[in-house]
Amino acid sequence: MIYAAVLGYGTVGSGVVEALGTNREKIAAAVGDEIAVKYVLDLREFPGDPAEKLLVHDFSVIEEDDSVQIVVETMGGVHPAYEFSLAALKKGKSVCTSNKALVAEKGCELMAAARENGCSYLFEASCGGGIPVIRALNTSLAGEKITEIAGILNGTTNYILTRMEKEHLNYPEVLADAQALGYAEKDPTADVEGHDACRKLAILTSLACGKRVEYTRIPTEGISGITQEDFRLAAAAGCRIRLLADAVIAEEQVEAVVAPFAVPENSFFYGINDVFNAVSVTGNVLGEAVFVGRGAGKLATASAVVGDVLDCAKNIGKTIPSFWAEEEPAMAEKDSLVFRFLVSIPETEKSKAEAVFGATEFFDAGTEGRLAFLTGEMQEQAFDRAFAELENARFLRARF
Amino acid sequence: MIYAAVLGYGTVGSGVVEALGTNREKIAAAVGDEIAVKYVLDLREFPGDPAEKLLVHDFSVIEEDDSVQIVVETMGGVHPAYEFSLAALKKGKSVCTSNKALVAEKGCELMAAARENGCSYLFEASCGGGIPVIRALNTSLAGEKITEIAGILNGTTNYILTRMEKEHLNYPEVLADAQALGYAEKDPTADVEGHDACRKLAILTSLACGKRVEYTRIPTEGISGITQEDFRLAAAAGCRIRLLADAVIAEEQVEAVVAPFAVPENSFFYGINDVFNAVSVTGNVLGEAVFVGRGAGKLATASAVVGDVLDCAKNIGKTIPSFWAEEEPAMAEKDSLVFRFLVSIPETEKSKAEAVFGATEFFDAGTEGRLAFLTGEMQEQAFDRAFAELENARFLRARF
Repeated sequence: MIYAAVLGYGTVGSGVVEALGTNREKIAAAVGDEIAVKYVLDLREFPGDPAEKLLVHDFSVIEEDDSVQIVVETMGGVHPAYEFSLAALKKGKSVCTSNKALVAEKGCELMAAARENGCSYLFEASCGGGIPVIRALNTSLAGEKITEIAGILNGTTNYILTRMEKEHLNYPEVLADAQALGYAEKDPTADVEGHDACRKLAILTSLACGKRVEYTRIPTEGISGITQEDFRLAAAAGCRIRLLADAVIAEEQVEAVVAPFAVPENSFFYGINDVFNAVSVTGNVLGEAVFVGRGAGKLATASAVVGDVLDCAKNIGKTIPSFWAEEEPAMAEKDSLVFRFLVSIPETEKSKAEAVFGATEFFDAGTEGRLAFLTGEMQEQAFDRAFAELENARFLRARF
Repeated sequence: MIYAAVLGYGTVGSGVVEALGTNREKIAAAVGDEIAVKYVLDLREFPGDPAEKLLVHDFSVIEEDDSVQIVVETMGGVHPAYEFSLAALKKGKSVCTSNKALVAEKGCELMAAARENGCSYLFEASCGGGIPVIRALNTSLAGEKITEIAGILNGTTNYILTRMEKEHLNYPEVLADAQALGYAEKDPTADVEGHDACRKLAILTSLACGKRVEYTRIPTEGISGITQEDFRLAAAAGCRIRLLADAVIAEEQVEAVVAPFAVPENSFFYGINDVFNAVSVTGNVLGEAVFVGRGAGKLATASAVVGDVLDCAKNIGKTIPSFWAEEEPAMAEKDSLVFRFLVSIPETEKSKAEAVFGATEFFDAGTEGRLAFLTGEMQEQAFDRAFAELENARFLRARF
C-alpha cells in the first residue's frame, strides 16, 4: 500500500480523492500496488463527506508520518502551499500539484528540493487541466528543441469569448452568467486579465527552454475590453477571437505574449470552443503537435493530478526528470514584438490609414460606416505610433 | 555512450539517424549520456550518405554485439522485422518501432518477450506519426478507464479528402497527385481502403482496454468510393467527410469501426486537414482529450521513434510498462453497430423514404433533383434493410 495525503479539499482536491477511489483497481494494476489517501488537510470540517474521517487540520501530522510518500497539493496560492510543499519534499515525499501560482513562482526551487531529497515535484495539472502536455514535454519531446509553445490556456476566457461570439452578448452579461455557472470566480481578474494564462505560459516555456521564464516579464493583456464591434471585425476577416498565450523560443531570446488574437479558420485554435484548452508545441524535428482537452473542471484537473500520483507511485525513491535552471532567458520587450494587426477605422479615416500604414486593401469591418484593413508584420512600437494617428480606431493582433 | 542500431534505412530510418544527430546535445542532456548509432542494417548500399560507414547487411552483426542496447526497427512488414525484433529482445536489447503491421500482428508477443528479458518494446511511431498518444496512454492516462478512442489515423486519406473537398476534384485525380507528391504509395490500397487506420485503431484500442484487439475483427471501409456528390451531401448538412477510426470500449464488448463519416463543425475532426492526424481519447475521469499532429512524414515519425529511444536509454535494464493480454475482448459485429446516417435520395424517392425510414425532415442534398435526410441512431442491419428499399440512394455515416 502506498499512502498519499491531500492538502486542500476544494474542487480539485476532492476530485482527486474521488478519482483515486473510482479507478482504484485500474490504478493498482498500473502501479503494481494500491494507493490510498491517508489524510486530507483542510481548515474546514466536512460532516457526512467520505473524507470526513481522513481530515486533519495540522500539516505536521502529515509531515511527520513516514508512511505518507506522496503529497497532493491542491490548496492554491503561494503561502502556505510553498512551505508545506518544501517541508514534504525535504522529508522525501513526492509532491503533485495543480497550483500554477506556486509553480510559476517557486517551481525551480521546489524541483531542486525534490532532486536533493530523492523524490519528485510534478505539476501536470497546473497547465491546461487534464491535457497531458507537461509529461509529453518531459518525456516524449525531451529530445526536441522546442521552438514555440502557443495555446489557449484559460477555460474561463475561452468560454466567455465563445458565448460573446455565438450569442452576440456583451462582456459584462456573459461574465455574470459565467460566474453564476461557476465557470468564473467572484473576482475574475486573474482569468479575464490574462494573469492565469500568463503563469501557465511561463511554466510551459520554462520547461521547454530549460530556463526560468519570469511570468512578470510576459506582456499580458486580457479580454475585458473586447466588444461586439471587435467580433464583427474578426468575422469580417474570417476570424474568431481567442485569448492566446504564445512563446517563440530562439537561441538569443524568448518572445512571449498573452493577448486576444484574431485567429483564422485554418488555425487549430479556431475550433477550440467553450472551456476547452489547446496547447500547440512545435519542435525542430517533430513539427507541430497540438494537445486539446478540458481546461478546467473538477475531474479533468483531478485526472492530471492522478497521472502524476501514479508516476510518483511507480518511482518511489527516485526523482522523475523535470527541470529548469534558475537562469533566466533573455525576454523580448513588448515594443519589439512583431505581429500582424487587424484594424477597424471610420470610413473618414481611410486616407489617413493609407498614409500612416500604407494600407491599400480595405474591406467592410462589419460595423456601419467602418472599414477594416490587415497590416503586414510590424513591431508593436511602430504599430502603436501609427495607430495613434487614427481617430476612433480599434485593433486586434492577428495570427495569420 | 549508449549504442543503437537502425534496421531499415528508408524514410523513417534515415529520419531517425538524422534526428539523433541534429539534437545530439539536447538528447544527451535529457538522457544523461550520449546516444550513437553504431550500425544501420539495409540490403542496399548508400554511397556518399553519412550512414555509409555504419551499414551492415547481416542482422547477426547487431544481434551479437552486446554494446548495442537499443534497436530501432523501421523496416516495415511483418517478416523479417518480427524475427529480428524477437532476436534483439531475447538478447536484452530494447526495440523501438514505427511498424504498425508488426505491432498489430505480434505486439502482444513482443511486449512479453521484452518483459521476460528486462528490456522494452516501444511503438509510439506506429500510430499517428509524431503524436505522443501511446506514451500518454501508458503513463498519464494509465489510471483512467478509457471509454472511447476515435481518430483520423491516416494522413494519406485525410490529404485526399481535404483536397477533394476544397478543389472539387474526383478521387482518381487527387490520388494520382498524392502519389506524384509522395503522400500516397504506388499501391495505395492499405491507406485508401482503411487497412492502415484499422491496424492503428487495433493497437490503440488494445492498449486502452488491455486486451488484444484483432484488426481483422474491425469492420473497415475506405474512401475510394467517395464522390463529389457525397461532399455536397455532407456540406448540405454542415459537415465534412473524414475517415474515422472509432472504438467504444464497454465492459461487455468493444464497438469498433473504420469508415468515412460526415463530421459536423462542432467536432474536433472537422478542423483536421491535409496530412494531419488526430486522436481523441475519452477517459472516465479525464473526459475527452485530443492529440493532433502530422500523421506522416519522415521527421514527424522519426521524432516519435526518438522519443522512444530516449525512454529506453533512460531505462536500460528495465521494462517500460506497455501491455495488453493475449485474451481478446468481445467485438461487436458490424450489423449491430449503431450510427446516425445521412442519406441522399432522388426527389422521386421521398415518399418511400418517409415510409421505410419514417423520415420527416428533408433538405436540399446539394445535387440537383436530390433530397437529403438524417436518420436517428439505428443499427447497421436495420439501416441496410431500409436503405435497400431506396432507388439510386447514397449515404454517409454521420457523427452528430
